[in-house]
Amino acid sequence: MNKGEVTITDNISETISKYLTNHTEYSGLAIIVDENTKLHCYPAISDSLPPHTLIQTKCGEEHKTLDSCRDIWLQLTEGAFDRQALVVNLGGGVIGDMGGFCAAAYKRGIAFINIPTTLLAMVDASIGGKLGIDFEHYKNHIGFFREPNEIFVDAAFLGTLDPRELRSGFAEVIKHSLIADADYWPNIAKYNFENQDWEKHIKHSIEVKEAVVKSDPTEKGYRKILNFGHTIGHAIESYFLDIPGKKLLHGESVAIGMICESWLSVQLTGLTESEYSKIRGYILKVYCKTGITSGAIEEIVSLCQQDKKNEKGKIRFSLLESLGKAIFDIDVKPDFITKSLEEYLKL
Amino acid sequence: MNKGEVTITDNISETISKYLTNHTEYSGLAIIVDENTKLHCYPAISDSLPPHTLIQTKCGEEHKTLDSCRDIWLQLTEGAFDRQALVVNLGGGVIGDMGGFCAAAYKRGIAFINIPTTLLAMVDASIGGKLGIDFEHYKNHIGFFREPNEIFVDAAFLGTLDPRELRSGFAEVIKHSLIADADYWPNIAKYNFENQDWEKHIKHSIEVKEAVVKSDPTEKGYRKILNFGHTIGHAIESYFLDIPGKKLLHGESVAIGMICESWLSVQLTGLTESEYSKIRGYILKVYCKTGITSGAIEEIVSLCQQDKKNEKGKIRFSLLESLGKAIFDIDVKPDFITKSLEEYLKL
Repeated sequence: MNKGEVTITDNISETISKYLTNHTEYSGLAIIVDENTKLHCYPAISDSLPPHTLIQTKCGEEHKTLDSCRDIWLQLTEGAFDRQALVVNLGGGVIGDMGGFCAAAYKRGIAFINIPTTLLAMVDASIGGKLGIDFEHYKNHIGFFREPNEIFVDAAFLGTLDPRELRSGFAEVIKHSLIADADYWPNIAKYNFENQDWEKHIKHSIEVKEAVVKSDPTEKGYRKILNFGHTIGHAIESYFLDIPGKKLLHGESVAIGMICESWLSVQLTGLTESEYSKIRGYILKVYCKTGITSGAIEEIVSLCQQDKKNEKGKIRFSLLESLGKAIFDIDVKPDFITKSLEEYLKL
Repeated sequence: MNKGEVTITDNISETISKYLTNHTEYSGLAIIVDENTKLHCYPAISDSLPPHTLIQTKCGEEHKTLDSCRDIWLQLTEGAFDRQALVVNLGGGVIGDMGGFCAAAYKRGIAFINIPTTLLAMVDASIGGKLGIDFEHYKNHIGFFREPNEIFVDAAFLGTLDPRELRSGFAEVIKHSLIADADYWPNIAKYNFENQDWEKHIKHSIEVKEAVVKSDPTEKGYRKILNFGHTIGHAIESYFLDIPGKKLLHGESVAIGMICESWLSVQLTGLTESEYSKIRGYILKVYCKTGITSGAIEEIVSLCQQDKKNEKGKIRFSLLESLGKAIFDIDVKPDFITKSLEEYLKL
């Protein structure tokens, strides 16, 4: 199997056990978990694992930092892990991004496997080889590209999730249909959040993301369409990271971002009012409206200016030409971003 | 030109100026220097550069740390450098390894150019895409592989070097002949250190290193021959890093490593006594003998056990089959490493 491909399984314990039996070349095994996945997910695989070291990091985006990496590297070093060791990232996007970064930079790179335990990580974060950490409140500011050796996805882990986390991951499922597959939209929009077919969505999202990533692994061009909703979404997420008690999850921020960026798509790239209305209506039904004060807008727009897609001071968006088709590298002036957020506030 | 290829020039100012004129795609330019290269090397190129940001790090291996990276990333962030920016690493191995690591991980990777200013960096460190930093006294413990966009080598910078630094770099020139080119040996061994033809050596070393790296970019096999002298050499370098006033330069440590590992090569891989005698004699003439106490041996052997080439607890060496031919993945027991160091002490 090629690096970075996804295996969907309904028996994660058997899958990992079989993999390790077939791969005796590894000299050691470390499992990276956080408080939550240690409690709720690790028991599902622990019995099927050979002797290993458990490395625990703190839960949450605010701990996706250089200090946490230092701590992981210290534990790998103290455990005398060599270049033939294997790291298994058992968790959501934070564990996958940061654990992958740590493994891929430890002794210039050891093998690692992602076992995503959140919907967000299953349909998005664990696929595509983006590794990294946040830095000075900029999301994924430090990192690089390397595919995991394997990705094992078992939808059973969704049962361990807080519904708010599930809803957050759903934003990426919605996005994958909006940017690349109009035909799939009814499979989402016909149903309330509570009645979604998660196994079907996981399979579909992985197909979309794998196809996009394969055509442009290091995001020189087409892969940027995956950023739809994320320029404003990331800025909103960063903004709320600093406000005690107001933290928004990634997908909750991206949901707002998709509404604002769909509005921009109407103004700039030919999305019709009727499509915009469908998208906005469905997203609002699932996510309700989030209280952004008008005073926050200026800072959110300013945060957009640090987005990694920007070039030479220009803010670059991925927008929709229609429901199901995205384009990238669209310059949007700060005034227009402000307007899109004001439109959201009016809803 | 392919990534990671070397351009040898006798007019670095013109070379960099021409390059930047032909590459208008860069959105910003940062030059990374240390105290020394700012004073002695930067003036040679500063007039030919467009507006840029100078990022200064502290000089020396002891500052090749995560904290220095944090500082570089902070300056890139505060300077609002985007993904189309270019970093130029102007300095020796520390600047090249660490500046490259910082550039290649900033926003998941921006372009960088190496302009090596030490002999060591010209003939070794700047070529081959090994990026990284030290961690908890383990050399290059955190890092990954990525080729610089360009490497510009101008031997004129050697004039800025302390003779001790020049002598340190010479160890890698010697190594390249020992591991891969017996015919070249007389070009080295016929002359005292003071009478070496550096331009010829630079050209030869780059050819050897490029050929080896090309055949095995990520060090799965054959590239390991470049580690001859480095298993014991790195351990000695790490050992002396902790002893105030006793710091050994990289090449000075590798010189001792090459003597010890040549002795091991006689015992294990067929190097003849007469070849060993030639190698040992010449290296001792250039580097004199370094005072290692017999009490240090145990710790040096223990440091060898953390070497990145090791597998499953076994210490793996690259040794010589003959003068001019190396092999890799040779298991050596700790007792034998001890003996090789005791032999060195007896000289």
